[in-house]
Amino acid sequence: MCSRTMASKTPVGFIGLGNMGNPMAKNLVKHGYPVIVYDIFPEACKEFQDLGAQVTESPADVAERADRIITMLPSSPHAKEVYTGANGILKKVKKGSLLIDSSTIDPAVSKELAKAVEKMGAVFMDAPVSGELEGVGAARAGNLTFMVGGVEQEFNAAKELLTCMGSNVVYCGEVGTGQAAKICNNMLLAISMIGTAEAMNLGIRLGLDPKLLAKILNMSSGRCWSSDTYNPVPGVMEGVPSANNYQGGFGTTLMAKDLGLAQISATNTKTPVPLGSQAHQIYRMMCAKGYAMKDFSAVFQFLREEESL
Amino acid sequence: MCSRTMASKTPVGFIGLGNMGNPMAKNLVKHGYPVIVYDIFPEACKEFQDLGAQVTESPADVAERADRIITMLPSSPHAKEVYTGANGILKKVKKGSLLIDSSTIDPAVSKELAKAVEKMGAVFMDAPVSGELEGVGAARAGNLTFMVGGVEQEFNAAKELLTCMGSNVVYCGEVGTGQAAKICNNMLLAISMIGTAEAMNLGIRLGLDPKLLAKILNMSSGRCWSSDTYNPVPGVMEGVPSANNYQGGFGTTLMAKDLGLAQISATNTKTPVPLGSQAHQIYRMMCAKGYAMKDFSAVFQFLREEESL
Amino acid sequence: MCSRTMASKTPVGFIGLGNMGNPMAKNLVKHGYPVIVYDIFPEACKEFQDLGAQVTESPADVAERADRIITMLPSSPHAKEVYTGANGILKKVKKGSLLIDSSTIDPAVSKELAKAVEKMGAVFMDAPVSGELEGVGAARAGNLTFMVGGVEQEFNAAKELLTCMGSNVVYCGEVGTGQAAKICNNMLLAISMIGTAEAMNLGIRLGLDPKLLAKILNMSSGRCWSSDTYNPVPGVMEGVPSANNYQGGFGTTLMAKDLGLAQISATNTKTPVPLGSQAHQIYRMMCAKGYAMKDFSAVFQFLREEESL
Amino acid sequence: MCSRTMASKTPVGFIGLGNMGNPMAKNLVKHGYPVIVYDIFPEACKEFQDLGAQVTESPADVAERADRIITMLPSSPHAKEVYTGANGILKKVKKGSLLIDSSTIDPAVSKELAKAVEKMGAVFMDAPVSGELEGVGAARAGNLTFMVGGVEQEFNAAKELLTCMGSNVVYCGEVGTGQAAKICNNMLLAISMIGTAEAMNLGIRLGLDPKLLAKILNMSSGRCWSSDTYNPVPGVMEGVPSANNYQGGFGTTLMAKDLGLAQISATNTKTPVPLGSQAHQIYRMMCAKGYAMKDFSAVFQFLREEESL
Repeated sequence: MCSRTMASKTPVGFIGLGNMGNPMAKNLVKHGYPVIVYDIFPEACKEFQDLGAQVTESPADVAERADRIITMLPSSPHAKEVYTGANGILKKVKKGSLLIDSSTIDPAVSKELAKAVEKMGAVFMDAPVSGELEGVGAARAGNLTFMVGGVEQEFNAAKELLTCMGSNVVYCGEVGTGQAAKICNNMLLAISMIGTAEAMNLGIRLGLDPKLLAKILNMSSGRCWSSDTYNPVPGVMEGVPSANNYQGGFGTTLMAKDLGLAQISATNTKTPVPLGSQAHQIYRMMCAKGYAMKDFSAVFQFLREEESL
Repeated sequence: MCSRTMASKTPVGFIGLGNMGNPMAKNLVKHGYPVIVYDIFPEACKEFQDLGAQVTESPADVAERADRIITMLPSSPHAKEVYTGANGILKKVKKGSLLIDSSTIDPAVSKELAKAVEKMGAVFMDAPVSGELEGVGAARAGNLTFMVGGVEQEFNAAKELLTCMGSNVVYCGEVGTGQAAKICNNMLLAISMIGTAEAMNLGIRLGLDPKLLAKILNMSSGRCWSSDTYNPVPGVMEGVPSANNYQGGFGTTLMAKDLGLAQISATNTKTPVPLGSQAHQIYRMMCAKGYAMKDFSAVFQFLREEESL
Repeated sequence: MCSRTMASKTPVGFIGLGNMGNPMAKNLVKHGYPVIVYDIFPEACKEFQDLGAQVTESPADVAERADRIITMLPSSPHAKEVYTGANGILKKVKKGSLLIDSSTIDPAVSKELAKAVEKMGAVFMDAPVSGELEGVGAARAGNLTFMVGGVEQEFNAAKELLTCMGSNVVYCGEVGTGQAAKICNNMLLAISMIGTAEAMNLGIRLGLDPKLLAKILNMSSGRCWSSDTYNPVPGVMEGVPSANNYQGGFGTTLMAKDLGLAQISATNTKTPVPLGSQAHQIYRMMCAKGYAMKDFSAVFQFLREEESL
Repeated sequence: MCSRTMASKTPVGFIGLGNMGNPMAKNLVKHGYPVIVYDIFPEACKEFQDLGAQVTESPADVAERADRIITMLPSSPHAKEVYTGANGILKKVKKGSLLIDSSTIDPAVSKELAKAVEKMGAVFMDAPVSGELEGVGAARAGNLTFMVGGVEQEFNAAKELLTCMGSNVVYCGEVGTGQAAKICNNMLLAISMIGTAEAMNLGIRLGLDPKLLAKILNMSSGRCWSSDTYNPVPGVMEGVPSANNYQGGFGTTLMAKDLGLAQISATNTKTPVPLGSQAHQIYRMMCAKGYAMKDFSAVFQFLREEESL
């Protein structure tokens, strides 16, 4: 629930109207915010024009008209371009503006952007989103979780907007820690999903019934979200991608991307991540072998299925 | 609770009175069973003599005097020796005897032993124990979980005895599936523990507070037993080995041993286990680098600490 | 060349007439040795009957009639059966016999067999063969290399026979070291082959011409047999499996088997082999994905090719 | 040998006078080139002042005075700063200048720099150096190998200078391919070095004499530069770092850095490098465990030595 007075409802900019950005921006509209949008693909803006949003020509234009902006972009280079490019936000950002980046990017890039934003007298926060596992549906329903990094005094201002789009808004610490939390979670998720797939596959080959094995793991120390909530073995659970030929959910390509970010962060901080780097390689191989668009739990299928060339 | 009538309390043999076997056998005594014991180290038997148990000279002797026997041995070769060796159980086993092996061994060896036992007209079940994480304490309190493989009709007979030593007795399927369930669980446990250590370490290096990061993981898709119940980072939880310099718990050597069994099973069944095999190597390196006797959650320390030679 | 006097040409037993055993045994015949053969598949013996060899009914029969025996078997269990089984060599082996096992098996099993053989007053040597890379052709041409483990005083006696089948006969040390040398070589071979495939693939993707890259590697510190003699990239070299759709050569299944032996030896000796174990997993995955019968250099194709499901 | 006429000996700029840059620049002086130097540490320039070189205040200053410049810098960010920074080369570069970067950096950064240089009407080539294995000595003796990427027409001009510093100058292709060749070689080198260390360690544990095992590998398919020229096992060869407590040679930190570049390139091109990424993790762990300043062949020691905490 978002219970602000109309008084606070000055325009909010939104840049990046893709799969996740689209329903997020719509939730702002639903909550009564005047929204000023931009997307590199003009068609993505049309729908918002019909909803009464102002459509602009560039990130700079958005920055000229709104002093609160949310960005939702696919990668570090896109984020750099939108903030610091030739027609980027920083060309026209107003002093005191609040810029919230919900993209999942390298935390080191978040810190760079924050510095550049600060120089202009504005505030930057990173607020990547989890909940992509339930995908667009969760975004539509406003069921996302935001992990927020930035100056603590500005957290409440950010929370006001983020609460319209997500049910959980968690303060993580200084700039970049929102990204850090997301990246660490997804790295652990990838590792335990592959581990679950390996353990279930091995157990089945050793003669165990998959449902029984899942039950045993889930009452034991092997229990994890991937085994008890999102089991990758068809027939063990309902309502998860493994029950639906690995359609929907969180794509293997996206997982590979997040693991790439984890590797960059690990290299920058000289942190050993032996299983994290192996998980990265496995998801990369899966992308090359036809699993790119399947849910990341399809690693069970990748490890299990035998093919002949 | 074990509520048998005294009628059923014919003698029970117990072979292998080590760290786990000792408290298990004592629980049988407590439940009123006449116990006939053997251990390769005579001193291990003394205590039981004082408790009124009969002490024998060999596994064969035990088999001569008891038609229900429980074995608790450190490895596959020990188990082979106790069953099929020169003075092994099979030299004098009586027809119809029930032989329950609670050792953690290669499921293929369990199957071999089962075949040899069957030839003698007796019944073999594998019933490895989980709960070593809480260690000897859990064994003493009778809080173990037994995962049982073997002919289903004999399960109740086995359960009568196992219930005296463990609060959970789970039927897993044909012979060897008890071992399989245990091995799969522990492989997944090792993978998710290392994953948790990597993710926590990376997050801390990126500026996150460890307690906060654990909280975020535990409400997200990275959640696992290693993060929410047995967190490897000192200061995050109380009452776990990481809070006590990794004393107690489940030793790194034992984890390395179980991962070795998982590798053997994976090789026998040609199952790919890329993270499981890497986890095996990591625990092996830890054993060589001074972590052998520490709890397996010390992988966090191994990955985190910087040394100079 | 083998230049013994006929005096020494008492009968030689040969057990295991498969892909490699067949041409090896024929080379003994060519060198004038009376040969006494056994194979579990009677058809495999026919050809030898036509060549004047004596065909027997069991390994024990061979041992009864020959005091020098060569065995060439596919795996550890087969070797155990042939030596210590119900109709095994040891049932009728004569004192002072020389038993040479050219199978590639676990060195720990070689040691076990050696002990059993010694008890009967005979001599056991392990003498696995390299040169399978050139396959049956090398065996036919007598171009094999034998790596021999066993008592040094008996080495010359073994060499007399082995020289008829191979151009190189190397003494490695006590029993089991022949296997050890072979296993270590093949583990390093697998690692450097995968490394070559990764490096070539990465270089090509970064815009390098494959031939030029191979040339640079081969004059630099990355040089290895897999890059300079057996390059896995089609078009770089002629006369190697990569030039012929990965036909011929050393099959992926056989490499996976040898890597399994390396893993067992590493586990027994608690030796960390992080890349060796990963190489094992990669060849196992390749076996499952249709590469089983291709040469092991096809790992380049496995890593490079993009598929859609 | 460098046999240019004095006519061509217009001044050459040299930026970056560290361990490798220092002897490289001196070789230019020896060959009669007037040299204009800059280093971020003024002390590094002193020696060159005494040799008659002109010392400047910034990369821009160098660019103002020389139309051929060689740069030798420790990492991608340093290179970016020197070329495109506030006082960077591009601030004052003359049209038609030839800029040769001998740093080892991300090939994608080389391409970026090349684009920026081209916009100013100058020419950029990447020419990383191999031969660091023999280290400063090779640089001093002019025994380096340069791998050159850039427009082919300009290769001869670059070669004129590079030949003064290295005995081998190889044209690799378009901009970035010099880096690519270097990175691919070093990734394969790391993999085969670790593989050699694993194989030698396993063989020794299985009872083989290290010298004999090295000899066997070197006449077999496991042969590689790390086994036959730079063997990591003390006592096997003389004149290599393993014979001298792993002093000298190519430091573990530098190898970890190059493997990091390989990972970045692999991620950018979506190339699977399972062993390359594992090698990266192993060298990273070694850096944390006190091996940072030892030669990279010390991975043998890391894998072999047993410690107690």
